[in-house]
Amino acid sequence: MVATAGHCVHSGTFAGFYDNFVFAPSFRDGVAPFESRNWRYVITTGAWASGGGVPNAADYAMLEFDDQAMTTGGPLTKIGNVTGWLGWQTVSLNPNHTSKLGYPCNLDSCQKMQNVMSNNYRATSPNNVEYGSDARGGSSGGPWVQNFAVPATSGGAGSNAAQNRVVGITSYGYLSADPTVQGASIPDSRWVQIWNQICARSGNCN
Amino acid sequence: MVATAGHCVHSGTFAGFYDNFVFAPSFRDGVAPFESRNWRYVITTGAWASGGGVPNAADYAMLEFDDQAMTTGGPLTKIGNVTGWLGWQTVSLNPNHTSKLGYPCNLDSCQKMQNVMSNNYRATSPNNVEYGSDARGGSSGGPWVQNFAVPATSGGAGSNAAQNRVVGITSYGYLSADPTVQGASIPDSRWVQIWNQICARSGNCN
Repeated sequence: MVATAGHCVHSGTFAGFYDNFVFAPSFRDGVAPFESRNWRYVITTGAWASGGGVPNAADYAMLEFDDQAMTTGGPLTKIGNVTGWLGWQTVSLNPNHTSKLGYPCNLDSCQKMQNVMSNNYRATSPNNVEYGSDARGGSSGGPWVQNFAVPATSGGAGSNAAQNRVVGITSYGYLSADPTVQGASIPDSRWVQIWNQICARSGNCN
Repeated sequence: MVATAGHCVHSGTFAGFYDNFVFAPSFRDGVAPFESRNWRYVITTGAWASGGGVPNAADYAMLEFDDQAMTTGGPLTKIGNVTGWLGWQTVSLNPNHTSKLGYPCNLDSCQKMQNVMSNNYRATSPNNVEYGSDARGGSSGGPWVQNFAVPATSGGAGSNAAQNRVVGITSYGYLSADPTVQGASIPDSRWVQIWNQICARSGNCN
């Protein structure tokens, strides 16, 4: 399962979902070292599907991808067993510090994954928080990760101590470069709702 | 040349400087992959030397290390040509976001370099700023680096845009874990003064 933005998978109008989603983990400079996978299920929130436009109260979505052999004739492997996975946590964007991953096209021409680290800058209505970032278009759908790091022995003091948890998804930025920020909906019960639905499908979450 | 804390090299009293400094770049789990070097010059600020104790207005220092052969019979090589180097910038700690590098003994038993990323939390007197950090004793003297990253093509928007610049040096923390922070003096003209002195020595800064 892969989290992304609602607007990456659904029009936010009666036109409904987009199609043909693929996931190429660790894509860099035209190379997909872990191959690409086709999707087989997608879900977004009612808040996004019934009223696209940002800031949105819940601009996020989840995708399920095919299991796939990583060698010719090899066993079908879940994506999480190839890349590892992140945890998640709701209502944790304000205050916090996050690593924002994605492929913004203003940096390295969308060819390298970027990691923008910054604090919460301000809350915005409805239910969004903006963080400092020089990433622009192309970075949508990337995770905002709390304490993105190889865990240190005895690490994890202070507020928001849990490591490697998704606490937001890149949703929007401004055309103007002032303020230099990006915004994300605060995952809440709507996140848990779509998580429970996609988790209930056979082979996920176990 | 290597920046460190004043209290790592000088007692802050009439007892004067400590001795026998070595630098082991990229030390990890008991291994020094770039060997260790002996010092040949050290300088700290008058503010530290004449009045140790933290917070201090200028708890930082600079060391010069021997050139050294990296292979048997090989040419003598400056430390900066082995490890690369960071730039620096004064009066840039409030506001900012930094990567704080060091070997705190509460994390991985001082055996791995840690990178703590956080924003300014509050200013403290005299001339210090505290940032969020779960690093404790052992991390003193580590650099606080602005935009510590492989530069991205077209990157560097927003405030404090320059990359890979030292803007502070880990100076102190609290025995209590609340607030979970570390403090650093704000490098200012006193930084420039010791820089100019150590730079003027033959073979440095050219």
